[in-house]
Amino acid sequence: MLMLPVPKKFFITAAAAEGKSKLTAFDNALLKAGIGNVNLVRVSSILPPECEYAPDMKIPYGALVPTAYGSIVSDIPGETIAAAIAVGVSPDSFGVIMELTGKFTKEEAEARITRMVQEAFEVRGMELKEIKVQAVDHTVETIGCAFAAAPLWY
Amino acid sequence: MLMLPVPKKFFITAAAAEGKSKLTAFDNALLKAGIGNVNLVRVSSILPPECEYAPDMKIPYGALVPTAYGSIVSDIPGETIAAAIAVGVSPDSFGVIMELTGKFTKEEAEARITRMVQEAFEVRGMELKEIKVQAVDHTVETIGCAFAAAPLWY
Amino acid sequence: MLMLPVPKKFFITAAAAEGKSKLTAFDNALLKAGIGNVNLVRVSSILPPECEYAPDMKIPYGALVPTAYGSIVSDIPGETIAAAIAVGVSPDSFGVIMELTGKFTKEEAEARITRMVQEAFEVRGMELKEIKVQAVDHTVETIGCAFAAAPLWY
Repeated sequence: MLMLPVPKKFFITAAAAEGKSKLTAFDNALLKAGIGNVNLVRVSSILPPECEYAPDMKIPYGALVPTAYGSIVSDIPGETIAAAIAVGVSPDSFGVIMELTGKFTKEEAEARITRMVQEAFEVRGMELKEIKVQAVDHTVETIGCAFAAAPLWY
Repeated sequence: MLMLPVPKKFFITAAAAEGKSKLTAFDNALLKAGIGNVNLVRVSSILPPECEYAPDMKIPYGALVPTAYGSIVSDIPGETIAAAIAVGVSPDSFGVIMELTGKFTKEEAEARITRMVQEAFEVRGMELKEIKVQAVDHTVETIGCAFAAAPLWY
Repeated sequence: MLMLPVPKKFFITAAAAEGKSKLTAFDNALLKAGIGNVNLVRVSSILPPECEYAPDMKIPYGALVPTAYGSIVSDIPGETIAAAIAVGVSPDSFGVIMELTGKFTKEEAEARITRMVQEAFEVRGMELKEIKVQAVDHTVETIGCAFAAAPLWY
């Protein structure tokens, strides 16, 4: 059947950066996260069955990359912002991806997003084998962005 | 020509749910709407020509599903929120999809979104054969989400 | 390798319109911009290598069109809103697309977005061969939308 191809690989990443504008702060955070030179296509937010963890994959420039992500931008100097991504993996089926952004520390973000993945598995009556989490926090200097993502790829 | 494949089928759905966080409320609403285990790729918002209504279709877990949707989340107990989706169908060409969210009742949301589809057809000078509408409202207990969608598929 | 196909052509467009609701104002702006009858799939925001400028291309109704875009809607009569899109082109590699919306004049939006593209190239250590910019501003009558986009196509 002709359809959009289902991703076969994933990784997770999180980074924060400053920029001269809100969008370039976002762009700089993507670059630090290692996915600044591709086209993110935002998805919500299921890890396909048999999608493998591949942290060192290379993606061609400009490729369309299905990605679950969250980002937060602030222009309030001194404010702490955070972004987190978590992938809940099941023993034998699909998984669930959660993202979280807010005015948290990294540790608060990690604790909250872990509970979110647990809730998503409980609601589905699924066994949770493993949670992969990445989070970042950032204290804003001028204009800052915190970003976390689970890129899905082929 | 190599391009993203144009969808051939669609359905509409609306649901509301509570969750322990804003994103899990959204996740729970998607589950109740029947599309919680796929990857929604948000699109704006045209029903392709010859795209057929298929309310009972099955979509594989984790698939990338082009979907026009709206969602609203509230953490104000007692607040009423609504989400609506409407697909305007033409006799012989493409159609137009509208989504609406806000602090409405279901009936208000249905009336407003119907007018939005009518406006979209008037502006295009197109004949409107039929409007399919689904809407939901929800009175928030703790953290609630109302969600409405038109998934497009193959 | 099976993946989402990488776009080969692009153009840029900007337009503003009024509507009877926020979403129909957006829909009307898309129609004026020439992309009101396709499905925009929002991407962030890289011009793939060898992606050619093709301002007169035709896209089939309802097609899924990867598009970097920004939009702003206002229902405050008399308020001026603007949207701008800029594509920075490199001599021999990928490019960077920036979008900007806000309460600007067209001229301010063009000046700001030009600096954003310059920052994106500086951060990457890349040579900037050319910037293509389109911007629009609009003084709101009832409900207005300003929209700017870089559709990517095949």
